[in-house]
Formats: sequence, structure tokens, C-alpha cells
Amino acid sequence: MRQSKYFLKTSKTFSEEDKIVSAKLLKQAGFIQESVAGRYYFLPAGQRVQQKIIFLVKEEMDKIGAQEMVAPILHPLELWKETNRTSTTGFELMKVKDRRDSEFALGGTAEEMFVDLVRKYQLSYKDLPFQLYQFSPKFRDELRARGGLLRVREFIMKDGYSFHRDEEDFKKTYEDMKRVYTTIFERLDLKTTIVESDNGYIGGEYCHEFVVEAESGETKYFATKDGSYAAHEDVAKFKKFSEHKHEEEKPRQDVEGVGIIGVEELAKFLGIAVEVTTKTILFETENPSQVVAAAVNGLYDINESKLKNILRCNELKLARPEVVKKVTGAEVGYAGILNLPKEVIVIMDDSLKGRKNFECGANKTNYHSININFGRDLPEPEKFYDIALAKEGYTAPDGKHKLVEKKGIEVGNIFQLGYHYTTLMKGAVYRDEDGSEKPYYMGCYGIGIGRTMATLVEKFNDEKGIVWPESVAPFKVHLISLKGAEKEAEKLYETLLKHKIEVLYDDRETSAGSKFADSDLIGIPYRLVVSAKTLERESVELKLRNESEVKLIKLDEIVKKLE
Amino acid sequence: MRQSKYFLKTSKTFSEEDKIVSAKLLKQAGFIQESVAGRYYFLPAGQRVQQKIIFLVKEEMDKIGAQEMVAPILHPLELWKETNRTSTTGFELMKVKDRRDSEFALGGTAEEMFVDLVRKYQLSYKDLPFQLYQFSPKFRDELRARGGLLRVREFIMKDGYSFHRDEEDFKKTYEDMKRVYTTIFERLDLKTTIVESDNGYIGGEYCHEFVVEAESGETKYFATKDGSYAAHEDVAKFKKFSEHKHEEEKPRQDVEGVGIIGVEELAKFLGIAVEVTTKTILFETENPSQVVAAAVNGLYDINESKLKNILRCNELKLARPEVVKKVTGAEVGYAGILNLPKEVIVIMDDSLKGRKNFECGANKTNYHSININFGRDLPEPEKFYDIALAKEGYTAPDGKHKLVEKKGIEVGNIFQLGYHYTTLMKGAVYRDEDGSEKPYYMGCYGIGIGRTMATLVEKFNDEKGIVWPESVAPFKVHLISLKGAEKEAEKLYETLLKHKIEVLYDDRETSAGSKFADSDLIGIPYRLVVSAKTLERESVELKLRNESEVKLIKLDEIVKKLE
Repeated sequence: MRQSKYFLKTSKTFSEEDKIVSAKLLKQAGFIQESVAGRYYFLPAGQRVQQKIIFLVKEEMDKIGAQEMVAPILHPLELWKETNRTSTTGFELMKVKDRRDSEFALGGTAEEMFVDLVRKYQLSYKDLPFQLYQFSPKFRDELRARGGLLRVREFIMKDGYSFHRDEEDFKKTYEDMKRVYTTIFERLDLKTTIVESDNGYIGGEYCHEFVVEAESGETKYFATKDGSYAAHEDVAKFKKFSEHKHEEEKPRQDVEGVGIIGVEELAKFLGIAVEVTTKTILFETENPSQVVAAAVNGLYDINESKLKNILRCNELKLARPEVVKKVTGAEVGYAGILNLPKEVIVIMDDSLKGRKNFECGANKTNYHSININFGRDLPEPEKFYDIALAKEGYTAPDGKHKLVEKKGIEVGNIFQLGYHYTTLMKGAVYRDEDGSEKPYYMGCYGIGIGRTMATLVEKFNDEKGIVWPESVAPFKVHLISLKGAEKEAEKLYETLLKHKIEVLYDDRETSAGSKFADSDLIGIPYRLVVSAKTLERESVELKLRNESEVKLIKLDEIVKKLE
Repeated sequence: MRQSKYFLKTSKTFSEEDKIVSAKLLKQAGFIQESVAGRYYFLPAGQRVQQKIIFLVKEEMDKIGAQEMVAPILHPLELWKETNRTSTTGFELMKVKDRRDSEFALGGTAEEMFVDLVRKYQLSYKDLPFQLYQFSPKFRDELRARGGLLRVREFIMKDGYSFHRDEEDFKKTYEDMKRVYTTIFERLDLKTTIVESDNGYIGGEYCHEFVVEAESGETKYFATKDGSYAAHEDVAKFKKFSEHKHEEEKPRQDVEGVGIIGVEELAKFLGIAVEVTTKTILFETENPSQVVAAAVNGLYDINESKLKNILRCNELKLARPEVVKKVTGAEVGYAGILNLPKEVIVIMDDSLKGRKNFECGANKTNYHSININFGRDLPEPEKFYDIALAKEGYTAPDGKHKLVEKKGIEVGNIFQLGYHYTTLMKGAVYRDEDGSEKPYYMGCYGIGIGRTMATLVEKFNDEKGIVWPESVAPFKVHLISLKGAEKEAEKLYETLLKHKIEVLYDDRETSAGSKFADSDLIGIPYRLVVSAKTLERESVELKLRNESEVKLIKLDEIVKKLE
């Protein structure tokens, strides 16, 4: 491609708003242009990169027999009503009506569409498993878009849906997909961590994000140094304190402690260890009559995501003071798990289990109960849960390594859908060997193409610009012609084209300095410079974008060198 | 691909609603599936065909230096307001609001988006010309969708936009694009006619549709047998009657003729030739105060599209009886071009020119004026127009050939936009050699990908199913294994894959008959059958889908044969 005619307009300046390096560089280098916030044009060079990523993803997906197709972008809203997703999605759904008053959702993800497709056919167990996927525009009505392609309102997503006979069969595909995704990101030169994540109301252990560690990322997760454990902050587990003293039950006491609320201060005041204190927090959910008391060992805090999943609720907010007063009889700050009204749902963290003579709020303003014991002062619950929040420095579940807090960009995710959609959507069944109809067991697999592109720039850049990995570079070679070498440069350009080497040819009438600066900004892996000086030695100058060394290569050897 | 695991589910039955052969076959053969009317899934085999068409189009576009990119699907509605297209588009625009109350159009075409992109850059005449194009989903809120992919509500369109210094430069690209499109459709084995068409309010002579002749098509056009002329019914010209008698002016007369309205009947009644009668029709436009009188020689009818373009109006409807009465003073049926009130716009067809002693309505109920003459009875208009409707059998503009009425499918179109968008949209300018800012001169080029796919099926099918041309067939080879030959078939499948021959491998446990029927329905060009019988002769049976002959080919020669 001749740069003089290429719609690749670099810019020396950038907007102060672009604090994220990938946003800044992709715009400056002419790969993307903003339409309105969160909606981007992929300019010719940007589109080349996007398509290379797509092609690479497709290649790996096809290798395991996944089948590319494409569903309509407008989804009949009735389908989303079948699964109650018109109001419960994490992302805001955009809706549109046509002139016949039919309502549609602008596809955010496409579970309903693929289930609706598959249920139109009478399939049998012999047809299973299969995986269908698409590269298609997705819409998210984000309240705030972030700079560049990291969080946008419109983007290409590779979304895949697998259909299985049962969970066991699904598990095989799930493990395959872990490998496929790892390979895809490896081929893109991206080091990903497979991070356990939140499967929301669907639950189950099969839910992972592929995360590239990066300061600009929005995903907070915890990992051990050796990589044996990695989990999203929403679900991260840790080894909890369990060296409880085996002491005799002491008589319960209600101690007055006016205005003492924090556990540290309280433990000091009461002369007890922090680990025998209890944090009890009251919440309300979207169900107006529901009040929840969540309790953890005073050493820890509550993880609201974990709590939400246990409650299968969509919203969780701290109970209003009047509600706290109504159910505990006390002001905020003195709630405990003792004598709560029956209608309050009590969820206790397993860090409460096995303790003797522990403390908890007395449900009486200014009072704290000590020497509380399960069995005597309150019944031991049938079940303890994990609702504690992991933090940097805590011990990993293996009991050995420490958790390190990390930030990263989620470039892909894989998760089980199980029977969730196929039971909510009538008729999503196959005929099993015994003739009975059974719902499909499903899995789901996504990759954000634009976000992957931004991540590549986040990882591969220097002070001069982008440093594309060869796998997805818009061109392999950037050929620069300097004054006095135009004729030889033209010849070399033709030669490279003839050998099907992807080349951007800077044939512009501009200074050498500005050509070099643009070349560094654009970030094509191999830079070739032809000048009067190199021609004196019948050579061309070769420089790799990610190296500083410059080599002279004989003109008649360059094609071989590049191939 | 193994057919046993492929999401390609053929069907023996079809819906009675599918009267269009491509709709019927694409569904039956498992290439597409309807979501809701006019919105289709492209199933894996269908998506393969779609992508092959896209790739072929891309190849030819890139050859002439056009640059692929992609614009957002949601277009800020302000842009469409700049060009007054929110209400004036021929197709119904779908609109959507986001949660911040920003309004968007779901892209129907993307002129505004590309102009808005280009005006964000300071370009100079040196950057010109260039052409940007995309393959992107388009939305049309059609009142009625037709069966299958011929007229849908959501589809992939290749839309390209070229930017030029002036009309002269545009013309070169226009001619290039004519050649490129011709090549594209030739490579697809589609014979297209380049049909002059309606450029609407933009006007100008550069507007052509690429039409494939087909009974199922919605495009009506006229062409001469020798192909020297082809034009859409909306714009088709013809050689009009001009052998007017050179006679003396006779005295004007108003003749009573109660209830005589048709020109044939009238001519007979008045004892004159039909060619001296006049048809005057009154119209109203979207402008509530506007009344138009359109007049043609009684030999012809009025072409409302031509009339609309002259008036630059969007709507045209027959004037209501009370309006007719008000402006002519007569009941409907007696309107003429005599003594009309000044506010009536009179548009006369050039078939009125040069006549002597002609007839026209008297603007008096039951009366017809004869022996009317320009100059004496009414002023000769400054300008005559062409507003006559072409019909089968009329003489082409060359005066030699007869017009034949044809029906076809519009698969592509090319047209000049001129300065239309770049003057309505502020700042869409480049800096010319003399330093002045000038608006870009533009052209626009579209291909409907899904419609092209349907057209291929319309043209290439037989009673058994689809007959894909090799250029876009989903696979090159359909390998069918019959009982007792499974092992050899597997081996052959692996061999074909190794040689990168695209093969669909029917490894299903089903009858030979049903495999053959499916193979014919799906329409892959080369069918290979391996059976116990062919193996006796160490051979495989080769049959081309578009031939009836069956050949035995030695197993070790088949790869060479197929390559």
C-alpha cells in the first residue's frame, strides 16, 4: 500500500483526555477514530489489525471443530423475556421498536438467539456436542466509556455457544476451550492468567476469565506468585483463621461500650483478640420485604458479590437506619446475630465456625455481647458459607502462598451456562438414546476483539509509539524511500508485492525525520530504508521495531531475509 | 468438515410461503434460518458462502486501491439531521436512544458517517482521490420483507465512498468501478446488465444498477435486445412521436363531450388522432400549498419518478377532487393546461413540443378544447421536460431498437453523490492547490452480499437443489462414504484435508439415497462417492453437480484431478 494514498493520518498531538496509552497511540497512529464517546471507526490500518486478530481466533476455533455462523443483530425481545434478561443483565440493554411495533434488543450477548436457533431443529444425542460461534457487533449501553477500545459501547465480540448431552461432556469442551484460548493469546504474544471468576446466578465452578496483567485494566484479581491460584476479587477464596482456642464456655455478658464500633477498637476495649469479634452487617435486596444479616469474623470484611450469589439477588444495599432499628431494636453499629426476628435471613461466613466465647453486637444500642457460644446462646446454623473478602497478603486456599493483588484486562472468558437457558426457554431439548427429551447442557465462550487489540498496544509500546507483534501487525514491512532513492524504492516495493510480502510503502514527499517518526508511531515490525547512501552499497537498511540495531542488507538478499 | 458433526440440517419439507426458489432452497439446504420475518441466521454453510462472496469483493476492491475500514453501526442522529435524511430516506430509518438520551440511527447507508470521518482531518488535494469501503450490517425497516435474502430487514452490505477533487476526477473512478463491479459479478458467474437508474434529488447521469435478469426480481427495467440501452423503469427514455403535421392554426373550439375521459375514446369522439390529444394530471406534493399540472402527449403516460425528480419533492399524489375543482373550476377528468391559476406549477413533457392544433381538457366540466396552439392560446413554456413513462415496444432513444421490458435483481449500484453531502455537512472540505477550501466531490458504491447470495441460487439451481458455482461454493468437494467403504473414505478425507482441499465429508450413518439427495440439495460442485464397489476397482466415483456423467477415478489420482 502506498502511504501517500493510504487513509492513515498520523497526528503529533493527542487529547489530554486520553490517559490510557492504547487510546492515545491507536488514535495518534491513525488506527481508530472516535465517532462519539465509546463508538469508534476502525480505519484501514486498524481494520487490518482487527481482521488479523479475527482470522487468528477463527483458525484456532475451527481447529477444534467449532463452527462459525452469524445471528441477526436485532434480537426479538420476547426471547429475552423468556429468560428474564430484559432487566437483569449486568450491562444495560439497548432496545428498539420497528414500524410494526415489534420490539428488539440490540445484541449484547446472544445466548437466547443461539438457543432459539437450535430449538428450531429436532436434534438427537448423536448430533452432540457442537459449538457455534460468531464474530458480531455487540452493544452495551455503558454509562461511562473509557478511553479507546478498552471499554466501549459497540464492539466486535467472538461469542461461542456449545451444546452438550450433559455436564460431563461439557467439561471436556471446557477444558479444550481453556487450551484453545491459551493458544490464541499465546499466538498474539499475550501472556494471560486464567482467573476464576463470578458466574453470577448460574453458579458452578466453571467460569474463568483470561486476564492480561496491566495497570490500566479494570479487573482486580488475586494470584499467588507461583501462579497456582488466581481468582477475581468477586470470588477469591483464602485460608481463613482457624486456630480457635478450645476453652470452656464462659457466661455470656452484655458490655456497655458507648460509640465503640470498629473491631480493633472494640477488641482493645473488651480486652479480647480481634479474631473472636464478629462483624454483622444488615442488607436489603431488591425484594422490599427482605432483610439479610451477614456475619464474618472480625478479622475480615464481607464480599458482597459472594453474598449476592448465595442470595440469588440482583441488588444488595446496606440496610437503611430505620430498617436496622426495626429488626435489631438498636442504632446502627450494634447489630449482632443474636435473637434476630425470624424474617431476617442470616448468612454466616465459615470464619465463624468452631469459635468459642466469641463477641458479637448485642442488638442493643451501645452494647456488645461477649462469651457467645453456638448451641447455648444461638443455634449453630445448618450451613456456613464463604462470604469473606480476599485481600492482599492473605494466604491462598492452598495454605502456603500469599495472595498478591493484581490488575488486568479481561480479554476473554469461558463459562458454563448449564441448563439455565435451556430450561427457561421451552423446547430447547434433544432426543436422548432412550427416546426421552432432555434440555441441552450449555457452555459459552467470549473474546473481545477490539479490547484484545487495545491490550496488545498496552503491552507493546515504547515512548515512540506502538510495537506490533508480527502476528497481527497491519503490515509486515514498512518501506521508506528517502530523497534520491525513489526509483530503487519503487522497484523494491514492486518486488515485495510480487513476493506477497505485506508492505506499507512510504512514498510521501516529506522529510526523513517525519517518515521515521511516523514509522515508529505506527509500529510495523520491519522497517526498510532505501536512501542514496544505502544504494551506494547496493543495500537497504533493515531495522526491527523492537530492536535498536540497524543492519545493511544487500538489495538482492532482502526478500529472502524477510521470508 | 465431518457432516455428522456439522450444523447443516437439511429438510425435506418447505414452507408454502416460500414461493421464491432461493428462499426455499437456502432454508431447505440448511444455509439460512429465519429468526423473525426478514432477519436471518447465516448457518455455518451459509456463512462460508457469504464470506467467500465478501472475500472476492474485497479482492477486487483492494486491487484498485480502495481501502477497507469499518464505521460504527449506530450513527449519531445529528449527522442525519445535517443532511435532512431523518425523514426523506427512501427506506425507513430505525432509531434508538441510549440511556443518556442520545439519539442514533441504525445504519441504513453510511454517507454521513464517512463524510463526518473525513471532515475530522485536514486533507489536501494531494490526498485525493481515495475510496473507503466497509462490509457492515445495514438495517431497513421494510414494511414487507420478501422470502429469503432478496429483501430483508438486516443484511451485510459492501458500501464504498469515494472522495474527489472534482467531477472529472470522480468520473475516472466511476468508470473504474463499472469495470470492477463487472469483474466481481463475472467472477461470481453472474451476468449483470448495467442499468441506468434514478439518482433521485441528487440528479446527474452517473447512476447505475447492476441487475441480474430474473423473474423473481423486483427491479423493472427496459433494455434493447442488442444490449446497447438498459434503463430502470423510473428513468427509462424512449424516442417519442414527433411527426407532427405542419398545418395552419385553426380556430380554437370548446367541444362538449359529457363523460368522455379516456384519450382513445376522446380522439374517436372528436375525430382527431390520439397524438394530438393531451393528458393533463394534477398532483399534490408534501408541500401543502403546492399543486402541479403535468401534461404529456395523449399517446403516453406520466412517469411519476421523473416528475418527482424535476420537482425535487419526496411525495407525489393525485390531487384530491376538491383541489382539482378549485384550480380548474371543473370536475375531475377535464383538466387542461389552459388558463390555470398562476400558483399551479405546470410541467410539460417534450412530447407536447412542436404540435399544432392539439387537444386538451377545457378546465370546464364536460368540455374539451381542440385546435389549441402554443403562442396563441397559451404561452409556449420556457422548457419542456421528459416526464413520460417508457413501455414495452417503444423505440429506444437511439431511434432504432425496440424496448423490451425485463425484471431483474439489483445486486449492486454505483452513483455520484457530487457535492450533495459535502455542502450540507459543514467543514467537509479539502485544501486545494491554491490554498482555498473546497468541498469534496463524492461517489458511492454498494453491493448487497446476502442478496447476491440469493441471486446465485436463483440462477443456479435445478429440481434437485442448489448448484453452486465453484467460486463461492461452501466446499469444493462433497465426499460421501457408503457402507463398507468407511475406512477408505476416512483415509481419503484425511488426504484431501492434507492437500487443503475444502471438503464436506458425509460420514453419517444414513442411507445412500438420503446422502445423495442431501448432496444434490446442498449443491457442492464435486461429489466423490466411495463404496465397496468403487473400491473393487481402487477407485472413487466423481460427479460434477452440474453434469450428469459419473466417472471412476483411481484413488491415487483424485487429488491431482481435483487440484
